[in-house]
Parts: sequence; C-alpha cells; structure tokens
Amino acid sequence: MQPRVLGIDDAPFVRDVDKSVPVIGVLYRGNQFLEGLLATKVRQDGWDATKKIVAAIKEGRFRSQIEAILLKGIAVAGMNVVDIQQLYHDTRKPVIVVMRRKPDPESFKSAMKNLPNPSKRWALVERAGELHSIDRLICQLAGLTPKEAQKLIRLTTARGNLPEALRVAHVVASGLARGESKGRA
Amino acid sequence: MQPRVLGIDDAPFVRDVDKSVPVIGVLYRGNQFLEGLLATKVRQDGWDATKKIVAAIKEGRFRSQIEAILLKGIAVAGMNVVDIQQLYHDTRKPVIVVMRRKPDPESFKSAMKNLPNPSKRWALVERAGELHSIDRLICQLAGLTPKEAQKLIRLTTARGNLPEALRVAHVVASGLARGESKGRA
Repeated sequence: MQPRVLGIDDAPFVRDVDKSVPVIGVLYRGNQFLEGLLATKVRQDGWDATKKIVAAIKEGRFRSQIEAILLKGIAVAGMNVVDIQQLYHDTRKPVIVVMRRKPDPESFKSAMKNLPNPSKRWALVERAGELHSIDRLICQLAGLTPKEAQKLIRLTTARGNLPEALRVAHVVASGLARGESKGRA
Repeated sequence: MQPRVLGIDDAPFVRDVDKSVPVIGVLYRGNQFLEGLLATKVRQDGWDATKKIVAAIKEGRFRSQIEAILLKGIAVAGMNVVDIQQLYHDTRKPVIVVMRRKPDPESFKSAMKNLPNPSKRWALVERAGELHSIDRLICQLAGLTPKEAQKLIRLTTARGNLPEALRVAHVVASGLARGESKGRA
C-alpha cells in the first residue's frame, strides 16, 4: 500500500527583508515516488498561510490524490501560523503537523510578542490541539487518529524519521531559495 | 551501487512573454533518493544556458557528488542550446543528453530560422555529436562512453525509461511554473 501525502515546507528567508516567502508542497506516493509539486507564497510573519495553502491545493492538479497533508511545524515564514482545523475543514484532507521535538510554548510566545496580535497567533497554535508521540516524532492532528497518522508516517518514510514528502519539500524549498537569490544578484 | 546524477529540465513558459525561464537541476542518488536541488534562470531563445548551468553547478553545495549531468534535450527555454562539450569541460562532469525519440534536424532548423544567428545555434547542436540508441532512449554524450551512459541510466531509472532525476526535474519545474504564475495573478 502506497498512500499519497503532500508534504509542505517553507523556504529559508531573510528576516525583515523577504516580505514574501515561498512555500512548497511535494506529493509523494509511498516513500519513493515524487509525483507532484505545488508552490505558493506567504507573507513573512503574516496571516495568510492557511488561505494560501488551501488555495494552492484546491487549484492544484492532484487534489483528489492527496490522502493527507503533512506540515513541518505549525508555522511557515516565521510566525505565519497555520490553522490546521481550518485547513482540514477547507480541503477535507487530514492534517499531520510533524515536529522533531516537543515545542516549547515559552519560546513560541517570546517569538510572537513583538509581532502584531500575539494572542490571536497563540490561539491558532492552541487550536492545533494535543501533542502526540508517534514513533520518534511529535505530532498534532486534525481529521485522523494517532494510529492512522502513524500508519501514514511509516508508509511514507524511507530513512530516518521524517516522511520523504517533508524531507524533499525541505530540499526543494532550500534549493530554490539559494537559486533565486543568485538569480537576483 | 547508487550513482548520483543531476537531471536538468526547464519550466514551461509563454512564448515571447516570459523572457526569463527557470531551469531546475535535481540531484538523485540511484533511482530513489532526491538529495539536492539547484535553480537558475536563462533567457528564452537566448545564449546563456551553458554558462548559467555551469555557474549553478559550481556554486551549488553538492558539486563534488555529481557523477554525471543529464539533460532532457539539447536546448532549454526554447532554442537556448547547451554546448555539452563546454559543459563537460567547465564542470568536469560527463554529460548525457536524453531524448525519447530521434531529433528531426529539419524541424530544429525551422524553429531556429527566425531567431538571431541560426547557423551558430545549429553549430552548437552539431557539437553535441553522434546519436546513440541506449535502451529505449536516444542520447548524445560528452565525456563518457555509450556503455558507461547505459549503466548510469539503468541505475538511476525507477519506472519507464527516464531516469528519476529527469522525471522529477520536470515535475518540479512544471509545478513551480504553475505556482509562480498564480503568485503573479
């Protein structure tokens, strides 16, 4: 069985310089085949991550094939927090937030405190719900059980702990950021 | 044995509108692991493909790992022809041009004839040298023998005829083009 999952990651960016940050979604079948890619851009420390990701998935060619959405952490482009309940609701795809270690609420709050509307940001983080230990990862879930999430993660991981879709979304987003900054020079 | 090859493809573009066309290089280990990505941009129907690809490889983080460069056809961004002898000379990496079918010199010449300097373009195509049938592909080679090319192609192909690095470079470049054009809308 080779489920298809979409792994989402953001590109590295320069704080306060890159207002708009690329976000890449990579569709993997099982743990081996890259089958699709989508791209969008979100505002650094903005509020548009959920909306932009939903739009990219809805407009993408492979929407019907996606069995679950994997996010590397709850925020992209700094503190542009994804509302995973909304993402699940709008796409009808279960969402798994994947972290390598337990997030520290204090460092989250401290990163938010100089940005507009920290309490609204924190509310989005809290909406992501309970932390689950799944194999060696920490996950937050919308629309599926920890057991279902574990099965998807295992079937889409090749080496190490991270599903290929997330590992490769990171490689692609980072490579593009380097290539693009060179292109501007 | 899992050789690492860089597969290069260009993004789709709108003729006469997109002056600058993204070119993506994807590093695959064997036929399964995407390990790196680089990006550059070249002029539509321009002359900078060889120079830009050389620069992207030299500035890339994984230069030393590349065992061969695979190109999907001899030109990118329309008729921006790659000089594969130069590419081999400047990067010290063998080059394999991969085509699904035998190119038709007449349609090539006809596509060039309304562009500046068609004879210089055609000379670059001719410099790519002899056509070799390798499994179900047609290839042009610089810096390696047909037997060496066949071995690399077989070790880096998963399904179908096309090495994963080229299949995935196409998926990534196309996905970005759609994502980016949406971003501008």
